[in-house]
Amino acid sequence: MSDIAVTYQVISDKADVSDLARKIAIEQSVETPESLITPEIETKFVGRIEQIIPVSNHTGKFTITLSYPEEILSQQYNQLINLCFGNVSMYQNVKCIGVDLPDKLLAPFAGPGFGVDGVRECLGVYERPLLATALKPRGYSDEKFADLAYEFALGGGDIIKDDQNLIGSFEEFKHRVALCLNAVKKAEDKTGKHCLYFPFISAPYEKIEMYFEWIKSQGVQGVLLAPLIIGLDTARGLASKYNLIYMAHPSFTGSYCVAPNDGMSHHLLYGFLFRLAGVDISVFPNTGGRFQFEEHDCKKIADELHRPLANLKSAFPCPAGGMQYSQLDEMCQWYQKDSVLLLGGSLLEHSEKLSESTRDFKAKILEEFPETITMTGKIQSISACEYDARSTSSLLEYIEFDDFNWLGRESVNYKKTNNISFEGIRRVELVGQSGEKSKFDLRYFEVTQNGFSSKEMHQHTHVIIVVRGEGEVVVGDKQYIAKKNDVLYIKPMAIHQLKNFNAEPFGFYCIVDRDRDKPIVVD
Amino acid sequence: MSDIAVTYQVISDKADVSDLARKIAIEQSVETPESLITPEIETKFVGRIEQIIPVSNHTGKFTITLSYPEEILSQQYNQLINLCFGNVSMYQNVKCIGVDLPDKLLAPFAGPGFGVDGVRECLGVYERPLLATALKPRGYSDEKFADLAYEFALGGGDIIKDDQNLIGSFEEFKHRVALCLNAVKKAEDKTGKHCLYFPFISAPYEKIEMYFEWIKSQGVQGVLLAPLIIGLDTARGLASKYNLIYMAHPSFTGSYCVAPNDGMSHHLLYGFLFRLAGVDISVFPNTGGRFQFEEHDCKKIADELHRPLANLKSAFPCPAGGMQYSQLDEMCQWYQKDSVLLLGGSLLEHSEKLSESTRDFKAKILEEFPETITMTGKIQSISACEYDARSTSSLLEYIEFDDFNWLGRESVNYKKTNNISFEGIRRVELVGQSGEKSKFDLRYFEVTQNGFSSKEMHQHTHVIIVVRGEGEVVVGDKQYIAKKNDVLYIKPMAIHQLKNFNAEPFGFYCIVDRDRDKPIVVD
Repeated sequence: MSDIAVTYQVISDKADVSDLARKIAIEQSVETPESLITPEIETKFVGRIEQIIPVSNHTGKFTITLSYPEEILSQQYNQLINLCFGNVSMYQNVKCIGVDLPDKLLAPFAGPGFGVDGVRECLGVYERPLLATALKPRGYSDEKFADLAYEFALGGGDIIKDDQNLIGSFEEFKHRVALCLNAVKKAEDKTGKHCLYFPFISAPYEKIEMYFEWIKSQGVQGVLLAPLIIGLDTARGLASKYNLIYMAHPSFTGSYCVAPNDGMSHHLLYGFLFRLAGVDISVFPNTGGRFQFEEHDCKKIADELHRPLANLKSAFPCPAGGMQYSQLDEMCQWYQKDSVLLLGGSLLEHSEKLSESTRDFKAKILEEFPETITMTGKIQSISACEYDARSTSSLLEYIEFDDFNWLGRESVNYKKTNNISFEGIRRVELVGQSGEKSKFDLRYFEVTQNGFSSKEMHQHTHVIIVVRGEGEVVVGDKQYIAKKNDVLYIKPMAIHQLKNFNAEPFGFYCIVDRDRDKPIVVD
Repeated sequence: MSDIAVTYQVISDKADVSDLARKIAIEQSVETPESLITPEIETKFVGRIEQIIPVSNHTGKFTITLSYPEEILSQQYNQLINLCFGNVSMYQNVKCIGVDLPDKLLAPFAGPGFGVDGVRECLGVYERPLLATALKPRGYSDEKFADLAYEFALGGGDIIKDDQNLIGSFEEFKHRVALCLNAVKKAEDKTGKHCLYFPFISAPYEKIEMYFEWIKSQGVQGVLLAPLIIGLDTARGLASKYNLIYMAHPSFTGSYCVAPNDGMSHHLLYGFLFRLAGVDISVFPNTGGRFQFEEHDCKKIADELHRPLANLKSAFPCPAGGMQYSQLDEMCQWYQKDSVLLLGGSLLEHSEKLSESTRDFKAKILEEFPETITMTGKIQSISACEYDARSTSSLLEYIEFDDFNWLGRESVNYKKTNNISFEGIRRVELVGQSGEKSKFDLRYFEVTQNGFSSKEMHQHTHVIIVVRGEGEVVVGDKQYIAKKNDVLYIKPMAIHQLKNFNAEPFGFYCIVDRDRDKPIVVD
C-alpha cells in the first residue's frame, strides 16, 4: 500500500452515504467547494473513496474508507491529526475507527524513545508485567510522599508516578521530587533493585523546559505528561529532547472516545496516536474500574501499542483507574507480560505498610509470571537511560587563564574529521559543555599562521570577540581585519571564514546558542 | 464568590445521582479511595457538592454543581483543565456545562493579548464586523495564493488566514508567506487600508519557534493556530511570547462538543477556555453551514467571548464553515459588530474577480453597519502591534573596538535607578539588543577604582571574561582575583558581586541568556 487509508464509521441514510463520504474526503483535504477543485487538485490532494460498507446488524451505520496520496502528509505529526480527524471531529455521528499508513510514511515518526525493551533495560526486569503506583492523594506532605515512594521501592515496585493533581510552584515541585528521588535511592541501596520515579510536569509553556532541565540534572529517567493538555506534539518534543521515558496520562482525553458514534476509537488515540507521538507507557482506564471502558477497547489499545509498525518500538499499555488486588491475575492474563499495571488507591489501602502491600501485589504478578532472570544486584549504567552528557571536563566556577590556555579545560584540535576544509585551528570549550545552565556555549579558538576555519554557514549566530593577534574575517561578500576586542556578529546563514596570515596567533572567543544546527561547509 | 464552581450535566438514576456527584468531586481533586481522605484533605482539596438539580422535562438528567477551594488551582491554566475536565472526560454521560472563577483567580490568566479593541486598532476599523477569508484550496501555487491575497486586500477585506491544510517544509512556508505578505502590501499601497495576514503554523515542537521568529522578522502581526493540535497552553505561550494576534482554528476540537451528553458545552471550549488561553479570534462552525452546530450554541460562544471577565480583554467570535453570501446580513444581526465573519469557498466562487467579490461581501456588511469612522489613509504605527524592540542602536556585523569603546555602540551608566547598591560602573550593549538572532546577549562592563556591582542573585547564569585590569569577584562564600582572560561562570542563584580596588579599570565581557529573570539584590 502506498497511500494513507482512513476509515470512519458513520450514521447516515443509505441514499446519502456516498455524498457524506465525498463531503468528508473534501473536508479533510482541501475544504473547498466542488467547483474550485481542478482535476490536478483532485488527483493530488482530495481523498478517494475506497469503499463504503454497511455495518451488519446496524441499519443506517456504515464504514467509509478514504485514501489520500502520501504527499499530503508532509511527514508531520500535527498534519496527520489534522488530516485524519481535524475538521471532521466537528461532524456529528462520524467516528474515526482506523488509520493505516504505509511503512515509509511511518518511518519518519520517532515513536517511543525507549519502548518496551528500553524501559525493561532501565529496570533490569524482563519477564513479567511491571508494577506501578501513583503518589497520592494531593494534600499529603512531601515527606509523606517520599515515605510512600520509599516503601513502594522497598517492596520491589517498578515505577512510581506523581498523581496528576500534584500541582504547585516550581519550588514545591523541586522539593517534592528531590525528596522522593532521594527516598527511592535509599530503598534501592537496600534492595539492589532499580525503581523508576516519574514526576508529573504540567507547567506553562514559558517555564516547562526549566522543569525538564531540572529533573534531567537530578538524574530522573522518565516523566508523566498529559499530552492532550500540554499538546500531543509538545509532549513528544519534550520527552524526545530530554531523552526521558514518557508515560502518558489520559487527563482530558476521554471526549475523543466515550461517545459511541462520535470521536475516534480508543485504540487510535491511546494506541496509534500516542505511540506515534513517542509514548513509552500509555495509561488508560481499565475495564471494570471507575470508568466505563469496554474490555475489547482496552485489548485493542494494548494490541495497537504492540503491533508491528515500521521501525517504531512497541510501547507498554498501562491499565489503571480503580484496579483492585483481586483483579491482578485477570489483568496479567489479559495484558500479558508486556504491560504496566498501575495501582494507586487499592495499593495504599491494602495494608498498614506500603512496602508489604507492594510485596503482596508483586507476589500476585509473580504467580502469573515467575521471574526467571536473576536481578543483577546493583543498578547498572545503561546507556539508553544515561544523560546525553557531552561534557569533557567538570563544571568550574573559576576558570583561570594561563597563556591562552585555561586551567581545567582541554585544548583540542578543531573538528577532527576527514574534511580538510580547515587548517591550523585549536579549540578550548570554556563554558557550556560541562553542565552549565546557560543557553549558550563559550569557546576559545585560535588560528595559527596561514590557518583558516571552514568556509561555512548555519542557522545559528556566531558572536566573536578577538582577544589575541588579528585576523581576516570574511562574511558574505565583506572582509574585515579583526583586531583585539573587535566584536563580530555573524548573522543566520551568512557564509563566513576566519583566517590568519600573521606570525602571532589569531585568537578569539566565540559564543553560540547551546541548541544549534549543524554547519554547512560551502567549499 | 471565593471558590471555583464547576457544573456538570449528568444522566443518572435519581437514587445514584448524589453518589455520582461525590465520585466526580473526588475524581477531579484527589482521585483516591474514601478511606484515605483525611478531614484536612477533605476541607482543602476535595470538591464540595453545592447543588443537584433535575433538568426539567428530562427524566434522569441532572445538573451537579461542585465547588473547589481556590488554592487547588495554583494559577495554572493546565491545572484548570485538569480540575474541571481531566479524568471526568472519560466518564460517559457527564458533560461539563459551566465553570465560574472568582475575579482574583481569573486575573492571573493573560487572556487575549490584543482582544477586540487591539485587533480593531491594528486595522483602524471600529464600527462593523470584520471580513476574513482563507487561502485555499491546497494545491494552488504560491503565486495563485498571493494573487488571492492581493485581490482580497484590494477589495477591502480585513483578515486573510492560511487554510489549515497548507502544510509543507519551512522553505515552502517562507516562500508562500513572503509572497502573500508582499501581495498584501502592494494592495495596501493602493487602497491605503490595512489588511492582516495570518499564516498557519503547525510545525513540530523542535522547529515551531523558528517559524514564529521568522514571521515576526517579516512584520507579520498575527497567526492562525490549532490549539487542540499543538496544545492549548503551547499555543497561548507562543502567541504571547511573540506578541501576535492569535486566531484559533477548531481542528481536532469537535469531539469535546458534538455528543449531546458527553464532553463539554461549546461555549466552554470555544469561548471560556480559548479566551483564557489568549485567543483573540475564535473560529468555530456557524450554525447552518457544513457542521451541525446549533444556533444557541453559537450565540453562547459569542457571549462567552465578550462577557466581562475580571481584567481579561474580550475576543472576537469568528463564525465560519460554509457560510454563504446570502447569510451575511443574518450573521451581522446575530453576532453584531464585534465579530469576524470568515468566508472562504463562497467568496472564491462568488464572481470571476476576488476583489469584486470582496467588495460585494463587504458592501453587504456595510449595509448592516455603515462605517462612520473615516479611514486614516495610511497604515499607522500602532504600538500594540509593534515588535517589542528594545534596541538602542542598529544591528552591526562588525563592531570595531576603540579603547574600550565600540563604534556604533553607546556606553551608558549601569542601572540608572534610585538603588545605590552599586557604584562606578559603565555598560556597553554589544550584541543582542539590536535585533540579533542569538539566544544570548553580550555586554561589556567596566568598574572604576573602588566601584562595585550590586550584590545580587538570579536564576540565569553569568559568563564573565576579564579583558581589562583585574578585580575581585565574590561568588557565594568564595572570592577570586580575576585577571585578564580569566573566565567565570556564575551558576543559577549564586550570590555574586564584582569589585575593583585598582587604579586600572576592571573591564569584562558578560554573556547572559536573552530571556532571563530579574536579579534580586541581596543587600
